[in-house]
Amino acid sequence: MRPLKVAVLGCGSVGSQVVRLLLEQAGDLAARVGAPIELAGVAVRRLDAPRDVDVPPDLLTTDAQGLVARDDVDVVVEVIGGIEPARGLILSALENGASVVTANKALLAEDGATLFEAAEKAGRDLYYEAAVAGAIPILRPLRESLAGDRVTKVMGIVNGTTNYILDKMDTQGSGFDEALAEAQELGYAEADPTADVEGFDAAAKAAILASLAFHSRVTASDVHREGISEVTAADVASAQAMGSVVKLLAIAELRSVAGGDDAVSARVHPVMIPRSHPLASVREAFNAVFVESEAAGQLMFYGRGAGGSPTASAVLGDLVTVARNVVAGTKGAGESAYADRAMLPMGETITRYHVSLDVADKAGVLAAVATAFADHGVSIQTVRQEGRDADAQLVVVSHEATDAQLAATVEALRGMDIVRDVTSVMRVEGELA
Amino acid sequence: MRPLKVAVLGCGSVGSQVVRLLLEQAGDLAARVGAPIELAGVAVRRLDAPRDVDVPPDLLTTDAQGLVARDDVDVVVEVIGGIEPARGLILSALENGASVVTANKALLAEDGATLFEAAEKAGRDLYYEAAVAGAIPILRPLRESLAGDRVTKVMGIVNGTTNYILDKMDTQGSGFDEALAEAQELGYAEADPTADVEGFDAAAKAAILASLAFHSRVTASDVHREGISEVTAADVASAQAMGSVVKLLAIAELRSVAGGDDAVSARVHPVMIPRSHPLASVREAFNAVFVESEAAGQLMFYGRGAGGSPTASAVLGDLVTVARNVVAGTKGAGESAYADRAMLPMGETITRYHVSLDVADKAGVLAAVATAFADHGVSIQTVRQEGRDADAQLVVVSHEATDAQLAATVEALRGMDIVRDVTSVMRVEGELA
Repeated sequence: MRPLKVAVLGCGSVGSQVVRLLLEQAGDLAARVGAPIELAGVAVRRLDAPRDVDVPPDLLTTDAQGLVARDDVDVVVEVIGGIEPARGLILSALENGASVVTANKALLAEDGATLFEAAEKAGRDLYYEAAVAGAIPILRPLRESLAGDRVTKVMGIVNGTTNYILDKMDTQGSGFDEALAEAQELGYAEADPTADVEGFDAAAKAAILASLAFHSRVTASDVHREGISEVTAADVASAQAMGSVVKLLAIAELRSVAGGDDAVSARVHPVMIPRSHPLASVREAFNAVFVESEAAGQLMFYGRGAGGSPTASAVLGDLVTVARNVVAGTKGAGESAYADRAMLPMGETITRYHVSLDVADKAGVLAAVATAFADHGVSIQTVRQEGRDADAQLVVVSHEATDAQLAATVEALRGMDIVRDVTSVMRVEGELA
Repeated sequence: MRPLKVAVLGCGSVGSQVVRLLLEQAGDLAARVGAPIELAGVAVRRLDAPRDVDVPPDLLTTDAQGLVARDDVDVVVEVIGGIEPARGLILSALENGASVVTANKALLAEDGATLFEAAEKAGRDLYYEAAVAGAIPILRPLRESLAGDRVTKVMGIVNGTTNYILDKMDTQGSGFDEALAEAQELGYAEADPTADVEGFDAAAKAAILASLAFHSRVTASDVHREGISEVTAADVASAQAMGSVVKLLAIAELRSVAGGDDAVSARVHPVMIPRSHPLASVREAFNAVFVESEAAGQLMFYGRGAGGSPTASAVLGDLVTVARNVVAGTKGAGESAYADRAMLPMGETITRYHVSLDVADKAGVLAAVATAFADHGVSIQTVRQEGRDADAQLVVVSHEATDAQLAATVEALRGMDIVRDVTSVMRVEGELA
């Protein structure tokens, strides 16, 4: 069998590890693919930039477009990230007859449709396991292992930075700013942490997970997004008092709609989950994705969600699959969007709230608060009254209601004289103690 | 596209759920595969046996051999279990041009080579995700997602019965017999529990995991096997005192061998693992598989390891993949055994022991015990001395040594006058507190 030629676009923390693994494991990869894998070239911005890995200098090029246009390239690995030039290069590669492996969550979540259609038209593979949860095999299980089942919910800790920050707030009692500063110092958060802490990164991954789980096209703009910058030490303390923990979750859920087909709710926001939930014990910058499906029940996938070497593992796994397909003269299953489900607006999504209130210590406070919930059609699961006098606190956990009903209830509570302050509002998943 | 015809062999707890999902999800399956999936027939032992699912009566047959010999069957699903007639039927199916999906761990672990060679010769697929850890996607991640990485260790809780029993011993302080009786009452253990509690089931799965992880042929007879019937309440209490828990693990590990290629250690035995280890929190009858690889680092896969419906989910996932391949006129990657690694005998495998001793309360006891370890070339990590007089206890955790050295040390301890009893011997994985 002739050697397969691989072009790598980008040689940052992921790209350099992809190159390293390709070179170090050449023998094993050849045996697993059924043909040698050769590096055709590595496109970089600057030839003389410092790199983690020694790339043979004659393979480096600044002409990415020229590299993907070469007619001897079988597979293009895109690990540049961002929208352009990545999109243009991937489209050129596919048009030119190469299969593509990418880790580009932002591009897939914004404009996956264009890429999938180009791959379909070209009869080539487009694989992207590394785009969600780094090293953790989660897209392939959704695409293939669960293809005979009906997935109903996916909940993931898919952003290591925010999990690190929330974990520190939980274990050290620190506030958001302090935990963020620590994360930045240790390299878990970037100097401009917006993409992580405001949930943009997780929202892109939620869109990709929702698309695969529900066989529909879901983009980042379909995902309701709230970050963690407003999570306070008081929220975390409230969670601890409930035997729970605050996590930033990417949630993709199938929900029945009266008189219609099931619709998809895709959202990213902080959530209180009980400590007994498998996701609660995901510490530090680790990632995990929890899946519920009709026949399989509950599954969880856990591992490293970022980092050059873990992400490169996922890229290489895809590369072996794509290369095997090239050798066999075939391609894998393409996009599956046949179900074409509608999106459920956040306001219509069914959630549960945990609300902590500073209240006046007067007779009738509990009745008044309960009435505010009832007026919005929200029933209460538990109420806990704590402290007396100036410290009187009410902690309410609601039953399920639409998010709009719950948000309106909180608005009404804020306007009540007897409510001095709404100290914590947090959505809840799972059964709190 | 013409409909694909599927024959199901066996209609027990798994087979009946496979049939149910095939019938209930026909529309989704057709959309995902690209062709309708039709049930060609269901082979059963008795036509009039009671079943969980209404199978159309005209599809039932007692002639399994006739069913697999039909020339319109594209895929055969084997969920009978056991060696024969399953093996003969699978071989007939492959020879006859059908692809095969099976959940048959015993057959794969005893004689996988015959099946893989028959599939290769026929140019057909043989998929078996359901054979290990039920609904949990673990074989596909090993075969594909990690195909560009170097897996170094796989540790799995792959038998729900034994995990249930050990969990009850841990949480309720019950003895083995009592916990087994409870498991039997609740249907988690069979009337004859030998296959589960003596580790035969886990050993078959260990062989399959080791084969895939290390690209070598490993059979059940290559797997060192110890069950849990000799795990005592004292062992479990010892584990608790060390902040750890006893689990029955299937372990497949790559170990360097002086002057040679890395060899494979495959084994099933009870292990003490620290409660902080991700596998420690796997409760009740759940399964989980922990994987370490060079680039990806630590991964864990968690879910239901048994039961008709979860196992059927895994079968259906394979069925969709195999059916897509039939539609595309191709097949997936076959067996990968190129590495052909040698097996490491148990005695040469590097392990660590936890040993609890009832000792005479005399000066010099610790020195004598330490000398016994040193005489066998085993160094001690920690010693704890507890109690006085008749209750004097020594708890020793060793550093790594060969299993033969450690076993010889325990033998020597048993022969010492000052050692009244060796109350607990257990291998250790991970760092105990």
